[in-house]
Amino acid sequence: MTKIVIVGGVAGGASAAARARRVSEQAQIIMLERGEYISFANCGLPYHIGGTIPERQSLLLQTPESFKRRFNVEVRVRHEVMSIDREAKQLTVRNLQTGETYQESYDKLLLSPGASPIRPPIPGFNNPKVLTLRNVPDMDKIIAALTTLSRQHVTVVGGGFIGLEVAEALRERQIPVTLLELAPQVMTSLDEDMAGFLHQELVNHGIDLRLRTGLSAVEEQGDSLLLQLSDGQRLETGLVIAAIGVSPDTQLARQAGLELGARGGIQVSDTMQTSDPDIYAVGDAVETRHLVTGQAGLIPLAGPANRQGRMAADNMLGHSEQYRGSQGTAICKIFTLAAASTGLSERLARNNGFNIEAVHVHTGSHAGYYPGAHPVSLKLIYEVPSGRLLGAQAVGRDGIDKRIDVLAVALRAGMSVYDLQHLELTYAPPFGSAKDAINQAAFVATNQLKGDVPVCHPADILNPTAEQFLLDVRNPAELTNIGAIPGAMNIPVDDLRQRLHELPQDKEILVICQSGLRGTVACRILQHHGLRCRNLSGGYIQFAAATRRF
Amino acid sequence: MTKIVIVGGVAGGASAAARARRVSEQAQIIMLERGEYISFANCGLPYHIGGTIPERQSLLLQTPESFKRRFNVEVRVRHEVMSIDREAKQLTVRNLQTGETYQESYDKLLLSPGASPIRPPIPGFNNPKVLTLRNVPDMDKIIAALTTLSRQHVTVVGGGFIGLEVAEALRERQIPVTLLELAPQVMTSLDEDMAGFLHQELVNHGIDLRLRTGLSAVEEQGDSLLLQLSDGQRLETGLVIAAIGVSPDTQLARQAGLELGARGGIQVSDTMQTSDPDIYAVGDAVETRHLVTGQAGLIPLAGPANRQGRMAADNMLGHSEQYRGSQGTAICKIFTLAAASTGLSERLARNNGFNIEAVHVHTGSHAGYYPGAHPVSLKLIYEVPSGRLLGAQAVGRDGIDKRIDVLAVALRAGMSVYDLQHLELTYAPPFGSAKDAINQAAFVATNQLKGDVPVCHPADILNPTAEQFLLDVRNPAELTNIGAIPGAMNIPVDDLRQRLHELPQDKEILVICQSGLRGTVACRILQHHGLRCRNLSGGYIQFAAATRRF
Repeated sequence: MTKIVIVGGVAGGASAAARARRVSEQAQIIMLERGEYISFANCGLPYHIGGTIPERQSLLLQTPESFKRRFNVEVRVRHEVMSIDREAKQLTVRNLQTGETYQESYDKLLLSPGASPIRPPIPGFNNPKVLTLRNVPDMDKIIAALTTLSRQHVTVVGGGFIGLEVAEALRERQIPVTLLELAPQVMTSLDEDMAGFLHQELVNHGIDLRLRTGLSAVEEQGDSLLLQLSDGQRLETGLVIAAIGVSPDTQLARQAGLELGARGGIQVSDTMQTSDPDIYAVGDAVETRHLVTGQAGLIPLAGPANRQGRMAADNMLGHSEQYRGSQGTAICKIFTLAAASTGLSERLARNNGFNIEAVHVHTGSHAGYYPGAHPVSLKLIYEVPSGRLLGAQAVGRDGIDKRIDVLAVALRAGMSVYDLQHLELTYAPPFGSAKDAINQAAFVATNQLKGDVPVCHPADILNPTAEQFLLDVRNPAELTNIGAIPGAMNIPVDDLRQRLHELPQDKEILVICQSGLRGTVACRILQHHGLRCRNLSGGYIQFAAATRRF
Repeated sequence: MTKIVIVGGVAGGASAAARARRVSEQAQIIMLERGEYISFANCGLPYHIGGTIPERQSLLLQTPESFKRRFNVEVRVRHEVMSIDREAKQLTVRNLQTGETYQESYDKLLLSPGASPIRPPIPGFNNPKVLTLRNVPDMDKIIAALTTLSRQHVTVVGGGFIGLEVAEALRERQIPVTLLELAPQVMTSLDEDMAGFLHQELVNHGIDLRLRTGLSAVEEQGDSLLLQLSDGQRLETGLVIAAIGVSPDTQLARQAGLELGARGGIQVSDTMQTSDPDIYAVGDAVETRHLVTGQAGLIPLAGPANRQGRMAADNMLGHSEQYRGSQGTAICKIFTLAAASTGLSERLARNNGFNIEAVHVHTGSHAGYYPGAHPVSLKLIYEVPSGRLLGAQAVGRDGIDKRIDVLAVALRAGMSVYDLQHLELTYAPPFGSAKDAINQAAFVATNQLKGDVPVCHPADILNPTAEQFLLDVRNPAELTNIGAIPGAMNIPVDDLRQRLHELPQDKEILVICQSGLRGTVACRILQHHGLRCRNLSGGYIQFAAATRRF
């Protein structure tokens, strides 16, 4: 009879415990959780703060009692593992309620300790009005603080997933919010050109968005806080919620002498085994191989944690399941928008030495003639000249999860943009288009790869050389109503064949339309008449999103 | 300068014309359309009948004039090609407005004639109150007929995509509807067990659904029609809309001696070339290779037609694009439900000689604790023992297109259910679950393949042998409130470990729960104690959908 001890009872740990029981009815399974709750809905915490999830109870998915009844797993909450004696295969555990300490042996040990919010060494950061959000007690503290705010204003530090979700939750409660982000953009899993859509959405919903701005110091000022910002400004606020990121919880592993990776996470093999063959580790605390780069890294996401837990359970009981790497597929709701990505961003791909190109399309979430279609802004990042898909990003109100899920599978299957042309996706007017956004983006990418329609980007349009010429092929009304690009000549695409003589013959023409579609037609006309040209990828929509400064 | 003539100006033909111009600014491109409209929104017609798309104008995506301006394509509507002289590479064309006939030469010819509604040889079928729906004039006729109905009742014949969409449209207009379907189910791209969800939805929305019932004869009775049905009944109705299916329009191709396939469509190579190398054909009129079976067949869908048109244009202009086969990915909205599928149904897979198994899950469209989640009923069909995915079907209110799109890509990539376990899909509470329905279905399938948790199906539960024993592991309240299976013993899964002695030791136990999840846990407990068992795939939800008779 194998005795399995699991340290940590949330995503990876709880998945492992339930799976272990389904694999073996005989195994003895003990789950030790230092917190008060197991298997709670971590990702739901911001939505209870905002009131979208009205019942706190619905976040508590399992109790020690329900886990015992269903899975015959012995769950001990408020029990913290203090150390591992690998030789003796024995743990020292402290019962946090009684303070007493005891020994617990194991045959196989699974570490699923998770990660902790980063608390940077900023003066005053330890003020009790600087809170973080990771678990149910954190959430309870935030809700309590919000009901007794000394000043009706909260400052969120960090524009990642948690920071964005918390900022939205606070706005749902009608609380004025400042969002500080040190980078020039929020949600750095997206490239800056795609994050632009989010900046607009945040501002539209009344968030005081401060990019390129960090928190330098926290001072008390009466009942409120006075924040010193990196740009020299000061900000009075009632509460700070810090969402700067998380760091893997590796204290126990380090003490036990387990190998850590270069990024500070617990090192594991593809079977989720640590450097000690009887100790497995999963979730936010471990480094996993990135599907695209092959490099080990920290990818703290719930989906991978759950699947890793399941595999570790199999393997602790004698199977040999291989984890096939993480690809960082993620999505975030930001008010009416969804923003999602998978694989490498353009920035990461370049940093990893890939020779890449990126294309953008803006096309309806379903057939335009059926009510309720919204633009899907989609970016593909692919290798040149192979066309291998490296990553994808999408932003919009509808169908964003679908497009990135499809591309996540394509990426995992090793597909190229040539392959994406052939995808046969569901189509009926309420759900899609006969040529889906993904097909269309693939067409644009293959046109680029074949040299049929070379692309350019907002940076080219912003700073054309003396050898370049800007041509806007939209209708004059679009320039007036939506926005024009200074210095660009305007010839609507349908008039272009008749007005070619107005263009300089010796310059490279950078073609601009609204979404990139008409620009393709214009480029083909220009090329036929011996003119060199490139088409602005994603058109004016992309230009505006990439260049509007917040 | 290549002269391209395109016969047919809707999906495939219009795509080809636009693409041909983007490939070559020099080519002469003529598009001949016997109807009045080009590039109209075929798939939107039912939604204008129902009023969801209020403006008729929005169905007309392009006009001959807009096509000329944008793409320099000469469009001639109401021009019908009467014959092809392949030797002379010349067409005889009739101008349907003037009645005059003329010759038109071509270098490359593209046939995109589409398909026509089947009009079966039923007595009285040619009555002017028996209409079909394929194009804008058909739609206009239906709308006119509905405004002057002699009797406020319409009979729709055929429960395929068009029949279902028309029936819904009629209900949107508050018109009483009888839907006749000769088969025991609607939407035969789904298996019968999945179609059960649709039957319930149709009945819930007031449709008089008559399965296993065909139309035998149509008689006039005053201003109304009297229908004779195959079950001997009679039905008085104001109008019949026949949506029995379509047959490929091959008259022109046949006259010209082009090879036809076994299913009656125009035979084409993967480059969309007919048996005459200067004649290409695309869309509903051609037979294409099925991605899974490799066999040529008729797959009349808008997505393939559009992509084929694009490739044919490339190839007519000297490129060599290969069409990679169709997989029949399709979706249909039925009131509040969506129903979608890709690849082979269980029935088709068995008919094609595959050794298969199928599993079902019913899981939330997103995290259950976040408001607005609806069940996704998902079926995977896969090969045994390889696990290769052969097809998938899904029904539900939300996220159906997403799941089938993901599985359509997985199918195209040749993935197995083992691979599907590892898919890393977008997860945040408003959009998904940490273990998506697809991951969960893959877990169930791999459990089945490995023999860990064998599955059974509703047919087994309906007719257990003397050597089988039915065990329902739900809570007593579920049996009372939702429904019980006669003859099944009830032991809730959480009590099972304590009550094993109540079970017969010598019989195979067929385990029933609500969705299949608890049944897995129960099976593992039973197996450990030496009992043979199988778990009902999809649980009681699936049983009810598969066995409720309409």
